[in-house]
Amino acid sequence: MTTLTIIGMGLIGTSLGIALRTANPKHTPLSNVYITGYDTNKSATRTARNRLAIDHQAKDMAEAVQQAHIVVIATPVQAIHPILSHIAPWLSPGTIVTDVASTKAQVCAWAHELLPEGIEFVGGHPMAGKELSGAEAADPELFKDAIYCLTPDASNSQHALDTIEAIVKTVGAKPYHINAVEHDAYVAGISHLPFVLSTALVAVTSRSPAWKEMAVLAASGFRDVSRLASGDVLMHRDICTTNRAALIRWINDTVGFLLEMREHLEHEDEAAIETLFAHAQKIRDAWLEQKGTMRPGEDAFESLQQVQHPGFLGIRTPGGKKHLHDD
Amino acid sequence: MTTLTIIGMGLIGTSLGIALRTANPKHTPLSNVYITGYDTNKSATRTARNRLAIDHQAKDMAEAVQQAHIVVIATPVQAIHPILSHIAPWLSPGTIVTDVASTKAQVCAWAHELLPEGIEFVGGHPMAGKELSGAEAADPELFKDAIYCLTPDASNSQHALDTIEAIVKTVGAKPYHINAVEHDAYVAGISHLPFVLSTALVAVTSRSPAWKEMAVLAASGFRDVSRLASGDVLMHRDICTTNRAALIRWINDTVGFLLEMREHLEHEDEAAIETLFAHAQKIRDAWLEQKGTMRPGEDAFESLQQVQHPGFLGIRTPGGKKHLHDD
Repeated sequence: MTTLTIIGMGLIGTSLGIALRTANPKHTPLSNVYITGYDTNKSATRTARNRLAIDHQAKDMAEAVQQAHIVVIATPVQAIHPILSHIAPWLSPGTIVTDVASTKAQVCAWAHELLPEGIEFVGGHPMAGKELSGAEAADPELFKDAIYCLTPDASNSQHALDTIEAIVKTVGAKPYHINAVEHDAYVAGISHLPFVLSTALVAVTSRSPAWKEMAVLAASGFRDVSRLASGDVLMHRDICTTNRAALIRWINDTVGFLLEMREHLEHEDEAAIETLFAHAQKIRDAWLEQKGTMRPGEDAFESLQQVQHPGFLGIRTPGGKKHLHDD
Repeated sequence: MTTLTIIGMGLIGTSLGIALRTANPKHTPLSNVYITGYDTNKSATRTARNRLAIDHQAKDMAEAVQQAHIVVIATPVQAIHPILSHIAPWLSPGTIVTDVASTKAQVCAWAHELLPEGIEFVGGHPMAGKELSGAEAADPELFKDAIYCLTPDASNSQHALDTIEAIVKTVGAKPYHINAVEHDAYVAGISHLPFVLSTALVAVTSRSPAWKEMAVLAASGFRDVSRLASGDVLMHRDICTTNRAALIRWINDTVGFLLEMREHLEHEDEAAIETLFAHAQKIRDAWLEQKGTMRPGEDAFESLQQVQHPGFLGIRTPGGKKHLHDD
């Protein structure tokens, strides 16, 4: 049996719990999992319990992590620093800690600074989400076929990597190894810039004195482009503040593009405007096409997949003895 | 019987044709419709015919409009000027002309300039669409519950308004009267700015040397915010060039917002960043909530609805005699 603790009973933490608890133990190298949940918000933990995301509701963080083979920190990124400080003295040697935050370089630096010898940290970031947050919105299918970034460093053992990859595969996602700093630069463009643009759209239209009339006319285009503005406010704030430099770069590029478009409009340069739209359409359609048959980059990704050997996963039993799972 | 001609067998024209032809004649004041279709692209017209969007495929534009009670121009906006010039001498007195273009002030000015006495023009704009274009993508459900803007002016008769409203209601949409200039200012914010932002997202991320790797990580957030970048290139170009002033204003506001966000990031002003996200979330959620139970502004909209009297629609029979429909 694998004892796993999830700290943070939000959308991702609760979805992970449900997905892990409902996985067929015969089809996962984790075998049976026993999940302990903790959240400072007791009502969220209760919801997670009611949704069968956890087996046990810990009364405090120390109790939550003491018996854990694996600890998943599924809180907003700014909460990770105090949590790592708080749990560090209570972790048993050999415990593997991971997180699900959207920025990785800062989190990995904190883990390096705060966790004691003998505790391994493997940064994680599932590329999955929805605009609703909280345990109520949890969905075990959230990770199905999603890319799940892992940002190990040279200090990580193969055992720790295998363990975290087992979680990723058990919930139906696909492990993707990437350097933490590169991860942050890339997701700032494809994940953080989109929610800034969604927010910009809602902000500038709703500041208009005519917003009430405009809201009547707003249809599916507005709905889709503004979707991420309904996302979790504190998560968005934390992502911005832990990934400032990368996001500022993308904001500058976007301002540059908008000024380029404005200049073409001012000069009535139809050909230049057409070229901008045609190029973006081509790129986006190619991206979507890859997405339709297989996930984009799946070829590159397949080569990163480990062949899954039965019994590859050595996990401590509660008594501290190594136990090899056979399924 | 109502004879109706659709010029332009794209997504909107073909969808309108299917929706009108499959409507129950007992439930529409149009009674039976006989639809003629025309497109310079013969393959599009064939597809529309195969999809039962039209009864008859006209061999040229003159033939297409000669017998029509109603002409719907469903082409990109820049094509409307030459089409109005071309059809003007062939229209019978009493014919009502409408369009479906996304910008209205320019189109209404063209109609005023080019159509002869005795021909009425009522500008129209269904707030519906999808990223696919062309007759193949046609969907008669496209207009279901959608707001359909009409931009009549003082010269329009009640008869012309009733006729066009009958089309709107028959396809399941909701007529919404609005001044053409106001329409253009509002849709520039809630419809045109979104596709510019979608395009900006795809353009700036795909210009990065790391785009290939980023494309692997791009997930549902990127997909939704970039959706409109897959829209019709010429339509987007034409909208931009016929609605320049309004769009430039919204682009300026967006650049202002992005610079505001960048300044908060540079000063690590977490509270200010949180306020921006929290405000947008609140506005967007309120908009979506209105949308969930009823369309936003439905209250205001209901008061604009005409009570539908049986037999309100006097339409010329092919022989030229007025005929009052009773259903």
